[in-house]
Amino acid sequence: MNKKQLFENIKKKQTFLCIGLDTDIEKIPQILLKEDDPGFAFNKAIIDATHDLCIAYKTNLAFYESMGLKGWTTLYKTIKYIRANCPDQFIIADAKRGDIGNTSAMYAHSFFEEMDVDAVTVAPYMGEDSVTPFLSYPDKWVILLALTSNKGSHDFQMLNDNEGKRLFENVLSKSQAWGTDEQLMYVVGATQGKLFENIRKIAPNHFLLVPGVGAQGGSLEEVCKYGMNAQCGLIVNSSRGIIYAGNGENFAKEARNAAKELQEEMAIQLKNIIA
Amino acid sequence: MNKKQLFENIKKKQTFLCIGLDTDIEKIPQILLKEDDPGFAFNKAIIDATHDLCIAYKTNLAFYESMGLKGWTTLYKTIKYIRANCPDQFIIADAKRGDIGNTSAMYAHSFFEEMDVDAVTVAPYMGEDSVTPFLSYPDKWVILLALTSNKGSHDFQMLNDNEGKRLFENVLSKSQAWGTDEQLMYVVGATQGKLFENIRKIAPNHFLLVPGVGAQGGSLEEVCKYGMNAQCGLIVNSSRGIIYAGNGENFAKEARNAAKELQEEMAIQLKNIIA
Repeated sequence: MNKKQLFENIKKKQTFLCIGLDTDIEKIPQILLKEDDPGFAFNKAIIDATHDLCIAYKTNLAFYESMGLKGWTTLYKTIKYIRANCPDQFIIADAKRGDIGNTSAMYAHSFFEEMDVDAVTVAPYMGEDSVTPFLSYPDKWVILLALTSNKGSHDFQMLNDNEGKRLFENVLSKSQAWGTDEQLMYVVGATQGKLFENIRKIAPNHFLLVPGVGAQGGSLEEVCKYGMNAQCGLIVNSSRGIIYAGNGENFAKEARNAAKELQEEMAIQLKNIIA
Repeated sequence: MNKKQLFENIKKKQTFLCIGLDTDIEKIPQILLKEDDPGFAFNKAIIDATHDLCIAYKTNLAFYESMGLKGWTTLYKTIKYIRANCPDQFIIADAKRGDIGNTSAMYAHSFFEEMDVDAVTVAPYMGEDSVTPFLSYPDKWVILLALTSNKGSHDFQMLNDNEGKRLFENVLSKSQAWGTDEQLMYVVGATQGKLFENIRKIAPNHFLLVPGVGAQGGSLEEVCKYGMNAQCGLIVNSSRGIIYAGNGENFAKEARNAAKELQEEMAIQLKNIIA
């Protein structure tokens, strides 16, 4: 999917919500445990109940890996299901990969050819040649970690260099030489509030993937105030706050209600940029 | 495996070689393609031919992921095979993971419980709470990226902070508050030569996992000169240089010869620390 299509979907559906499928077998409703593939049954129910309210789904690889081969089967089935039934969804593999060139090339092959997702999250620590192998696929995206939502983001990402530029700012500026805003997005945590202003100074046109609204405490209003641009430029993710909104028979309906609430707030925010 | 056991193995076997199982279906000998699981057949042959010459095997996750479910099956079988047949080997999952706390906890579960490896490589970009979930397993190890072997290591890892301390030095010093040298190692590329001196000033006692000897051009002699400590403190990895030494019927024998050559150089280096 290209940038224009993504923005068209946002306008049409009046949402820039990404739903995070952090599917944990210990948290899904007990009634699903009798299914052959409980994780897939859960994801399918969530997707069926929410796809008109979001423009992206994010699969968190850790949750599938931790279930071994069964988990990988669930993951592949989920991605195929979204592709087949919701062709307008942007699919993100939240994997935070990144390695030396020949190894990153193998990861890129995994995600963009084996799995056929639209985007993969990549950690920048190893620099240019760990990222560029992901950038050689047309209409596929790297979402590079810039300023993450967790407490540990202060350990290294906020370190000043000898010119007063912080590490996340170096990541934002250097990486723009590696790819365009048609193939590169950045992860910026919703918990970072006013720092979105600094980010927009360096990367005015890029889409940002924003985790941390909901369970982690970030504010959608603040993210929009400081981070939105004329093409929206935001994909805001919520995982636990939506998919575990309910835990009984009506879990899918409750997930829908939680997603609907965010979508409605997003529609209001979109009025600021769309006449 | 604990640090003492690792050093005992090094002394007993006169080697600190780690063999990297970067198993690529397009590079393994054609004669193996008739096997049910060619990747496993290859790994088994390499392990059988080399296990007395090394103290560790490193599985590079990208190479298995890129083959989808088949690749994961190969990976699990390989790890089980090493555990069952070579109980003295230290098994590393080279995965370069790292995410917010609850997600890193899922990865830790995957690697230390599902897969039962001894160590996993972790990227430090997201800071403390992305690393600590891996540190709660007794006798299991985090191998944190510090200064990698690739060209891109210069992009961010070498950035000076406003006190003249480089990012990799910040990673080395900060992370020592998160875990001891009984549970934390660092990745330092063999291509970094004299910088091993700087690293030993900050982390004199830690084991370092050193990739980049062989195909990437690092020198074993230089690594030992600047990086070895009284408990060896080095696990030097070679992947392509060993496992693809030959490509015909005798590939396992040729891999053994390549491993033997490194092991013999290592035995000479070990004389400097062992009376």
